[in-house]
Amino acid sequence: MRAVEIIMKKRSGGENTFQELQFLVNGYVNGEIPDYQVSAWLMAVFFKGMTPSETASLTRVMIDSGDVLDLSGLKGPLVDKHSTGGVGDKISLILAPIAAACGLQVPMMSGRALGHTGGTLDKLDSISGYTTALDLETIRRGLSTVGFIMTGQSEKIVPADRLMYSLRDVSATVESVPLITASILSKKFAEGAQALIFDVKFGNGAFMKDLESARVLAHSLVEAGRALGRKVVALITDMNVPLGVMTGNFLEVEESIRCLEGKGPADLMELTYRQAAWMLVAGGVCKTAEEGTAKARSCVRDGSALKKFWDNVELQGGRVPELKAQLGLRRAPYFQDLLAPVGGWIIGMNSLEIGLAGVALGVGRNRKEDLVLPDVGFEFFKKTGDRVNPGDSLVRIWSQDEVRLTQALNRLAPAYEFGHNPPAPRILIREEITAL
Amino acid sequence: MRAVEIIMKKRSGGENTFQELQFLVNGYVNGEIPDYQVSAWLMAVFFKGMTPSETASLTRVMIDSGDVLDLSGLKGPLVDKHSTGGVGDKISLILAPIAAACGLQVPMMSGRALGHTGGTLDKLDSISGYTTALDLETIRRGLSTVGFIMTGQSEKIVPADRLMYSLRDVSATVESVPLITASILSKKFAEGAQALIFDVKFGNGAFMKDLESARVLAHSLVEAGRALGRKVVALITDMNVPLGVMTGNFLEVEESIRCLEGKGPADLMELTYRQAAWMLVAGGVCKTAEEGTAKARSCVRDGSALKKFWDNVELQGGRVPELKAQLGLRRAPYFQDLLAPVGGWIIGMNSLEIGLAGVALGVGRNRKEDLVLPDVGFEFFKKTGDRVNPGDSLVRIWSQDEVRLTQALNRLAPAYEFGHNPPAPRILIREEITAL
Repeated sequence: MRAVEIIMKKRSGGENTFQELQFLVNGYVNGEIPDYQVSAWLMAVFFKGMTPSETASLTRVMIDSGDVLDLSGLKGPLVDKHSTGGVGDKISLILAPIAAACGLQVPMMSGRALGHTGGTLDKLDSISGYTTALDLETIRRGLSTVGFIMTGQSEKIVPADRLMYSLRDVSATVESVPLITASILSKKFAEGAQALIFDVKFGNGAFMKDLESARVLAHSLVEAGRALGRKVVALITDMNVPLGVMTGNFLEVEESIRCLEGKGPADLMELTYRQAAWMLVAGGVCKTAEEGTAKARSCVRDGSALKKFWDNVELQGGRVPELKAQLGLRRAPYFQDLLAPVGGWIIGMNSLEIGLAGVALGVGRNRKEDLVLPDVGFEFFKKTGDRVNPGDSLVRIWSQDEVRLTQALNRLAPAYEFGHNPPAPRILIREEITAL
Repeated sequence: MRAVEIIMKKRSGGENTFQELQFLVNGYVNGEIPDYQVSAWLMAVFFKGMTPSETASLTRVMIDSGDVLDLSGLKGPLVDKHSTGGVGDKISLILAPIAAACGLQVPMMSGRALGHTGGTLDKLDSISGYTTALDLETIRRGLSTVGFIMTGQSEKIVPADRLMYSLRDVSATVESVPLITASILSKKFAEGAQALIFDVKFGNGAFMKDLESARVLAHSLVEAGRALGRKVVALITDMNVPLGVMTGNFLEVEESIRCLEGKGPADLMELTYRQAAWMLVAGGVCKTAEEGTAKARSCVRDGSALKKFWDNVELQGGRVPELKAQLGLRRAPYFQDLLAPVGGWIIGMNSLEIGLAGVALGVGRNRKEDLVLPDVGFEFFKKTGDRVNPGDSLVRIWSQDEVRLTQALNRLAPAYEFGHNPPAPRILIREEITAL
């Protein structure tokens, strides 16, 4: 077998076999196949795509390239979720305790903020004492006692993905649906998930700008998951308005706790409950999404989900009394409100610009090596669909210093769009694609 | 400027600027841009192509990546030709003396045999004493006295092409028209040609299998040449039947001499005279191709072209008396004739298979490092369009040993196709595209 023939086949629109993908990926990881052949192949995949079974083969080969988290012997069902990333998306922090309270085991592995989207690990790091670097023993203990853990990804899991992702980044081959699919699925399955729920976002705050491209990715994830014999559900959701009323790191931890207390904003809870519902169906706990939603709601209502949250904070080293004392009070030293320049309806928000204004504050990062600030961010008083009078406070900006405050304010102001009539109501969950 | 953005632009179907191509190619040659970015870019070019002015920019940048042969001060006009390669194509050996006899200066730089096609340098190497490794002083002297030289390519000329060609070879990006165009043009113009004639072949013995793909390459060469301000003519010619009556190394030298003596086969002379005619037009010696053809014919008729040939052999160290004594006699020790298995008309020949049968004999090579044999090859008695009786000799195979003789025979036999009616007459020169 020769790498150039594997490239040639893909270039001509052919389907690479499992053996060919194994040869290419393993050869790359072992250093036997040079990166210049892999990058040419990646570009050919960019143009020619992959069939679902081909994507599944690539995923399988990538999983096999490294360690697989040993979660055997746990009672399960082990169910995880993955979001393609958005602004104000703190659903993981709310969803995992709910799912655990409903009887699932959730080995939640998350990433850090990059670009305009936030990162679950950065949010959790704002909790004093909390660690997201867990060893296998703690992961297993956390799953069997609390029912969920929140951790970062081990270096030893899917090394092929780390290598290929770096190469895609410099070879302009990031935006390829089968490559994105195999990257996501390989990590999630290597981390022990038996079933998976995807939140595939579209809109101005998402990576996929339009419904159609989100649909293509969602179908790819579901089809490849199905080909791998896993239970998978993908929700296609609107990311044109920041989720909930806060963005930031500690601010989003605080909002998550509020949600678990039953005081969450409607959009955030709708999406959280629906994802929880499908997790329960995929995990075999509930028969229908409606049943799952009801069960999830009851776990919030009876306080069992909130208890799971606090149990997890304790398990992962967070200082519970300190965190409780900070709620509603812990904020960066400088703040300013952005006021409505006109009266009328808010007909749109540019979530990408809002996310980037957050990066300016230090909520997120432009480059991997940048540090984030825990206490900065936004509290939204008004969002798309709300009616405002001139001078109403739209959003409060919390900053570590005045320079960044001004920068964020200037970026945020043009992100609001006003009109004389209310906008069409937003349908948050557009489509659901299931392979159960 | 960042390489990944240059790749991204090409990937999205954009046009890379001169500055971008300069950054990419120079960065690659200097070792600042890694091969994995260049190979991804090459694959993007494979899929998205290049405009003529973009191809011209790439050519210009590649020329500038190394030395340019200093042919300044020669009276000129300096005109060269390039063939995309075929079977039995020894036209360079006949054409250069004719063009020189007609008043042009021809700095002919050629390559070696690879795959099923022969190489001018390998043919010339079969002449005892003849060297194709000329220094600049000899090149200049040869051009100003004899009027043409036959040489290989200096390592210092267009280093970008050598690097990129090796990378294309292993990244499955060889078959890209703009990349082929820039590779050919950059070498030819760096070698001092002021005008260029292209023989773009199509058919079963050519790299371009069909007329349409040959047409695309021919137009690309002419348009990019025009954008570089050079005079360029491309002939699109039929390569479904081996050219002339001999293939081999010494055998083709011998046939070339016969042609210059006015005893050449019709197909070979038609193509040679037409290429000579356009060289004379592009070089400003003649006004029309008809005038050029007449002048070329007269240079063969009056023996001046043949004299140029002998002068060149002497200039390049060949032993003229020895060569003259070998004509018609110097052959490999083993031979066998392939006989017509049926009577009727020869309606087709598979030139690719004939070329590969030649490789089996040692005429050409599969890999760069293989050696070729000077005295082996084929003498064709019958070709497509000829009528044969059962048992007539079709072709004589000359071999260095019996094993290869049998191998070549077995490969050659199925390459002939017979029918009850004559085939449609072959139109050798299908199209001519000029930028004068």
